[in-house]
Amino acid sequence: MQGQSQQQAYDRGITIFSPDGRLYQVEYAREAVKRGTASVGIRTPDGVVLAADRQVSSSLMEPSSVEKIHKADNHVGIASAGHVADARQLVDLARRRAQGEQLRYGQTIGVETLTRAVTDHIQEYTQTGGARPFGVALLVGGIDDGEPRLFETDPSGTDYEWQAAAIGSNRNEIQEFLEENYRPDADLESGIELALRALGAADDEPVDAENVDLATIDTDDETFQTVSQERLESIVAEIDQPDAEESDE
Amino acid sequence: MQGQSQQQAYDRGITIFSPDGRLYQVEYAREAVKRGTASVGIRTPDGVVLAADRQVSSSLMEPSSVEKIHKADNHVGIASAGHVADARQLVDLARRRAQGEQLRYGQTIGVETLTRAVTDHIQEYTQTGGARPFGVALLVGGIDDGEPRLFETDPSGTDYEWQAAAIGSNRNEIQEFLEENYRPDADLESGIELALRALGAADDEPVDAENVDLATIDTDDETFQTVSQERLESIVAEIDQPDAEESDE
Amino acid sequence: MQGQSQQQAYDRGITIFSPDGRLYQVEYAREAVKRGTASVGIRTPDGVVLAADRQVSSSLMEPSSVEKIHKADNHVGIASAGHVADARQLVDLARRRAQGEQLRYGQTIGVETLTRAVTDHIQEYTQTGGARPFGVALLVGGIDDGEPRLFETDPSGTDYEWQAAAIGSNRNEIQEFLEENYRPDADLESGIELALRALGAADDEPVDAENVDLATIDTDDETFQTVSQERLESIVAEIDQPDAEESDE
Amino acid sequence: MQGQSQQQAYDRGITIFSPDGRLYQVEYAREAVKRGTASVGIRTPDGVVLAADRQVSSSLMEPSSVEKIHKADNHVGIASAGHVADARQLVDLARRRAQGEQLRYGQTIGVETLTRAVTDHIQEYTQTGGARPFGVALLVGGIDDGEPRLFETDPSGTDYEWQAAAIGSNRNEIQEFLEENYRPDADLESGIELALRALGAADDEPVDAENVDLATIDTDDETFQTVSQERLESIVAEIDQPDAEESDE
Amino acid sequence: MQGQSQQQAYDRGITIFSPDGRLYQVEYAREAVKRGTASVGIRTPDGVVLAADRQVSSSLMEPSSVEKIHKADNHVGIASAGHVADARQLVDLARRRAQGEQLRYGQTIGVETLTRAVTDHIQEYTQTGGARPFGVALLVGGIDDGEPRLFETDPSGTDYEWQAAAIGSNRNEIQEFLEENYRPDADLESGIELALRALGAADDEPVDAENVDLATIDTDDETFQTVSQERLESIVAEIDQPDAEESDE
Amino acid sequence: MQGQSQQQAYDRGITIFSPDGRLYQVEYAREAVKRGTASVGIRTPDGVVLAADRQVSSSLMEPSSVEKIHKADNHVGIASAGHVADARQLVDLARRRAQGEQLRYGQTIGVETLTRAVTDHIQEYTQTGGARPFGVALLVGGIDDGEPRLFETDPSGTDYEWQAAAIGSNRNEIQEFLEENYRPDADLESGIELALRALGAADDEPVDAENVDLATIDTDDETFQTVSQERLESIVAEIDQPDAEESDE
Amino acid sequence: MQGQSQQQAYDRGITIFSPDGRLYQVEYAREAVKRGTASVGIRTPDGVVLAADRQVSSSLMEPSSVEKIHKADNHVGIASAGHVADARQLVDLARRRAQGEQLRYGQTIGVETLTRAVTDHIQEYTQTGGARPFGVALLVGGIDDGEPRLFETDPSGTDYEWQAAAIGSNRNEIQEFLEENYRPDADLESGIELALRALGAADDEPVDAENVDLATIDTDDETFQTVSQERLESIVAEIDQPDAEESDE
Repeated sequence: MQGQSQQQAYDRGITIFSPDGRLYQVEYAREAVKRGTASVGIRTPDGVVLAADRQVSSSLMEPSSVEKIHKADNHVGIASAGHVADARQLVDLARRRAQGEQLRYGQTIGVETLTRAVTDHIQEYTQTGGARPFGVALLVGGIDDGEPRLFETDPSGTDYEWQAAAIGSNRNEIQEFLEENYRPDADLESGIELALRALGAADDEPVDAENVDLATIDTDDETFQTVSQERLESIVAEIDQPDAEESDE
Repeated sequence: MQGQSQQQAYDRGITIFSPDGRLYQVEYAREAVKRGTASVGIRTPDGVVLAADRQVSSSLMEPSSVEKIHKADNHVGIASAGHVADARQLVDLARRRAQGEQLRYGQTIGVETLTRAVTDHIQEYTQTGGARPFGVALLVGGIDDGEPRLFETDPSGTDYEWQAAAIGSNRNEIQEFLEENYRPDADLESGIELALRALGAADDEPVDAENVDLATIDTDDETFQTVSQERLESIVAEIDQPDAEESDE
Repeated sequence: MQGQSQQQAYDRGITIFSPDGRLYQVEYAREAVKRGTASVGIRTPDGVVLAADRQVSSSLMEPSSVEKIHKADNHVGIASAGHVADARQLVDLARRRAQGEQLRYGQTIGVETLTRAVTDHIQEYTQTGGARPFGVALLVGGIDDGEPRLFETDPSGTDYEWQAAAIGSNRNEIQEFLEENYRPDADLESGIELALRALGAADDEPVDAENVDLATIDTDDETFQTVSQERLESIVAEIDQPDAEESDE
Repeated sequence: MQGQSQQQAYDRGITIFSPDGRLYQVEYAREAVKRGTASVGIRTPDGVVLAADRQVSSSLMEPSSVEKIHKADNHVGIASAGHVADARQLVDLARRRAQGEQLRYGQTIGVETLTRAVTDHIQEYTQTGGARPFGVALLVGGIDDGEPRLFETDPSGTDYEWQAAAIGSNRNEIQEFLEENYRPDADLESGIELALRALGAADDEPVDAENVDLATIDTDDETFQTVSQERLESIVAEIDQPDAEESDE
Repeated sequence: MQGQSQQQAYDRGITIFSPDGRLYQVEYAREAVKRGTASVGIRTPDGVVLAADRQVSSSLMEPSSVEKIHKADNHVGIASAGHVADARQLVDLARRRAQGEQLRYGQTIGVETLTRAVTDHIQEYTQTGGARPFGVALLVGGIDDGEPRLFETDPSGTDYEWQAAAIGSNRNEIQEFLEENYRPDADLESGIELALRALGAADDEPVDAENVDLATIDTDDETFQTVSQERLESIVAEIDQPDAEESDE
Repeated sequence: MQGQSQQQAYDRGITIFSPDGRLYQVEYAREAVKRGTASVGIRTPDGVVLAADRQVSSSLMEPSSVEKIHKADNHVGIASAGHVADARQLVDLARRRAQGEQLRYGQTIGVETLTRAVTDHIQEYTQTGGARPFGVALLVGGIDDGEPRLFETDPSGTDYEWQAAAIGSNRNEIQEFLEENYRPDADLESGIELALRALGAADDEPVDAENVDLATIDTDDETFQTVSQERLESIVAEIDQPDAEESDE
Repeated sequence: MQGQSQQQAYDRGITIFSPDGRLYQVEYAREAVKRGTASVGIRTPDGVVLAADRQVSSSLMEPSSVEKIHKADNHVGIASAGHVADARQLVDLARRRAQGEQLRYGQTIGVETLTRAVTDHIQEYTQTGGARPFGVALLVGGIDDGEPRLFETDPSGTDYEWQAAAIGSNRNEIQEFLEENYRPDADLESGIELALRALGAADDEPVDAENVDLATIDTDDETFQTVSQERLESIVAEIDQPDAEESDE
């Protein structure tokens, strides 16, 4: 009780430090991320894979409108987990920033530069009063000078670069799965498979292709491309017969 | 009690995160939506149907002044549920945005683009201090390049696309009814019938045509049209004899 | 007690939602309206009648200075109930808006358009921090293209159109009286009588003409006109002998 | 106790509504008015009389510096009760407004128009946050087109027109005295006498001329004029022998 | 206890009214004045005397730097009591105002006009949020058209005109002493003596000339002049032999 | 307990008055000054000495970076005690102000004028909301028209002029030492000695020259000069043999 | 308990003083620094060494993205400890400031000047309301006119110059290790060794080269240079055989 009432004293109003140097509002925003369905990113030499679990609450809802994977620029995709409307704000910021780079300097924005623009914006909302932090984490994947890159942004405004990463619900379980199964030299197709298997890892059962949003950014053509539902289904079907498949490979 | 007093600590003042990552003010705004009478939207190949239950508190009140269905542009209608005055602000925003598109670019605004303009505005009110969220949900229906579209906006600033959706009072019961009875290939007339039956679904008795506001946006002429009280009454009358009617069809 | 202290948590500071989706400051503003003396509006084919009960606290006070009926434009009148100084702000807004329409577009403002300008202003004060809602309800009556119109604005910023309506103290009793006695085809004179009888309805005794402020907006000449004290007294006198009068009519 | 702690919840910070629709800060400002010494205004056909009780706390204080009656324009005077420094702000506002009218339109401002400018300013301080209401009531007396007028402004921003009115300490007793003794057809001299007797009414003993500030605005010459201490003393002396005097008159 | 906790509820944050119509922050600012050493002002036909008790906390402090008497303009002096840094702000305001009058209109500012500029500024800080009241009282002395004038400003923004007045510590005792000993027709020299004796009155022992700051504004030459330490000492010496002196005079 | 909880009520949020007229935030800022190591200033006819005790927390820290004595202009030095970063802001303000005077008017700024610019800035932070007071005291020493001057600024924005003064930790003990040992006619060298002995006075043992920052502003050349570590050491060495030295002198 | 609840009263909302003159929010920000992994800086005649411990939470995270050492300008590096996103803001500020100096004045910015620009920015966030302090400490190392310099900034906005310093987790232990082992005349290679040994000092075991980020700014070429992972590994290997190595040296 004592501990609880002390904590409450530092986690309201504007974002301020607690006696042990924590920013509770930022930590609570991380909880908002965990309340969202999972997204994963996989970096392969051939390109980056972004995949997201989307929960559709009704059979009458258009699955495509439950946005989890967004195209930020021709060569950059963003997967999100957490507060949907917050994610849209950050994706819009990324798009404007990418277009601005094109317009002002006539060049494609770097994936790392773009990620920083987003995390600077997120940080500001954790320090200045009168607003709450963004309740969303992003995976930003794309191609920088022929190199596939994959970044994560968190609600504190920190960014990390990953070979493979998970955000959102069951993050720990999925990340553990990725650590055990990721092979840096896998091709894009294997990356897609890994992503799909990772999304199902927490439940210990295959993911339902209908509930998955998946896109790739290919290293060669540097282009964001959504993977069709049909192809996802056929890949998931193969995953379901892992013994046969894996021995084939 | 403990739980209650903890919750209270995070749901006042500006919109901030609770320890479990929730935005209570947004969730309370959703309660304001549930306090409003129901609205439904039905997408058919021939057009979109928007229908709303309106409660008239006195026989001397002009039913038409209890606004639930609004024309946002020639080809877009909006049904609302929740705080009436808030709805009017968002409808006005949508109208100005549609007119602006026409004036600046000489073109009709897309239904999805228009919905996003509205949800961006809603999201801002959930993050920046000094204001409360909008206590209203909207159904935005219209025609995009010959395709009927139906979107929902919620108080968090999220939008969803639907084949058929309900907002407001008894949402769950009505949505369930829609899931059981919606046929994607039904014509507009059947859509109107379905909408009327859906509005009555929660009470298990036919809706009173006098208390209904209904409009369609036809796929062919892309035009918002209010359905007259007379026609509504004749349709409701047919619904009341479902056995005969349904066998005819 | 528990319920009470919970309620108190949501009704202070800026206007925010309570857990059940209510805006307490707006509901309290409605109580401010109930604390004001009653006003009624009657729409007849021949014009609109606005009447108000005004309580004069001292025999030395000029009754005319207890403003309850205001001329907003040549063809529009406004009756108010609630916080007097707030009413004056809204009436002034309406006047400026009507004059602006005349100056900018050279045309008379519509009664509905004018009402909306007022309710938009009221709504803003319920959503943005740093101010309280307006503690007043208005009845806006006037002629639109030869059609008599009667609108009500409430402290949430909602407007309703009425055939006959009451606001302020004893609203429910008076509205019930109107529902029982209103005839849509009555002439203006009968409308005035009904208004006067309605104001006395809650007390079950005839209203005192001295305490009434009454004006009409005639459909033909579209002009706001205050009814003189003498005429009011003669009408009240006739009402006091209802049997004789009503059989005459 | 319960009632008390509930009340306290609504009367702090910015001016907001209590559950029963009251604005406590405005009501407390009215208490500030009652803490001030009384002022009275009397309207006669020959002009308006403004008189004020001024308490001088030390024999070394210049009585003239305890301002209770102010000249706002040639034809308008203002008597105040309550917070002295607040009164000065409103009187200055009235003066600037009167001068502005003269400069911009080359005409004398109406007494009612001037009063409204003041009450609009007062109202604003009761609705917008970040300031407290004005703790002062005013009596504004003057000549409008040859007609003597007398208005009161209260801390809510409401104005009333009076034949004779009292504000400040013992308001109720003095107003009652005025209601019993006011004669609408009395001449200015009688008005002065009535004002002086009214100020003494609460104490049931003659007022001390030294503690009175009194001015008239004559209907004929429309000019604000302070009545000299000598003349006040002689009038008070006459009042002290009421039997003789009144029979003379 | 009950009373105490109620009081506390109204005296924090911005300056607001208590239920009995008081402004506690202003009353507390008056306490800040009482915490300062005393100042007195004496008006004589020959000029105004301003004198102040200054407590020098160390023998190494320059007494002249403990500012209590300030020259505001050639013909105006200001004595202060209370918060020293606040006093300096108001004195600077007065100086800028006096210079502005000279620059803009080429004329010397009136003592009353100058005092009002200061009290208007003080009042503003008692009504608008985001600042505390000024914790200082001033005595403003000077010559207006050959007439000596002496004003007091208090933390509410009220001004009073005096023949002789005291502010600060032991105000009541010193004012009482002045009431008993002030003679309106005394010459400037007697005024200086009275001021010095008044400062010592509360302690019932002669004031120490070293701890006194004293200046005069002469009616003839209308010039602020500090009285030298030597002269003060010789006057105090004379006061110490009151019997001899007073009989001489 | 009672006293304590009452005090707490007035010392938070913006700087406001307590019921006894105190500004707690300013008093707490004075405590921040006491938490800083001591500084002393000595005025001699030959110039001003500023000396400061600086505590170096590690043998690897550059002592010069523990700033306690700052050059504000050629002829003005500032010693500080309290919050180091706050001191730097005020010193920067003083520097900009001195440069501005040079640029705008082509003249050297007066020491008193410069001090006032600083205290005006400090005062503003004690009255206007949204910021805390400065937690630092300064000793401003310099030459005004050939006259050595020494001022102190405190967190309330008050300034005092001194012959010799101490600020910061052990202020009372050091000031007492100065009062006993200061000779107004001592030469600069003796002033330096006195400053060094004063800094050691509270501990009753000689100060360590390594921990002292010392500068002089000479009356003749009006130039700020830091005294070298070597010279300080040799002076301290002489102080340590006080009997021999003092008899020599 | 008593002490605790008192402390809590002063450490929330904007940064204000506690009764003992402390700024709790700043002290809590220092705790945020301690929560970050350690960084050390070593100044040698040949250049400055900056080294940082970086904890990589997953084998799939790119270690290079856990930024602890940043290049601010060609000749300046910055190591950080604490809140990562805050550090990036300050590093960006330093970069813009360095570029601005180059653009405006065509010259390289001084290391001390650059550090001050950063600490001024940090201080502002500790005094003005509406924001929290920066939760980060920096070590700024570089070459000023051929001289190696090493500064520390802390969350209060204070800067210190060091020969060798540690920030972040285990600061005290590491600083102690540095004090015992630092030799001012060591060459750059020895500085790198000392930095690596210091980072491992708290755990009493050699640091893992993989978890270290290390850069040098050479005195001769005044250029920031990251030390490669290979070279770090070979140096750590030598450190692990200290007896052999140290006797060689």
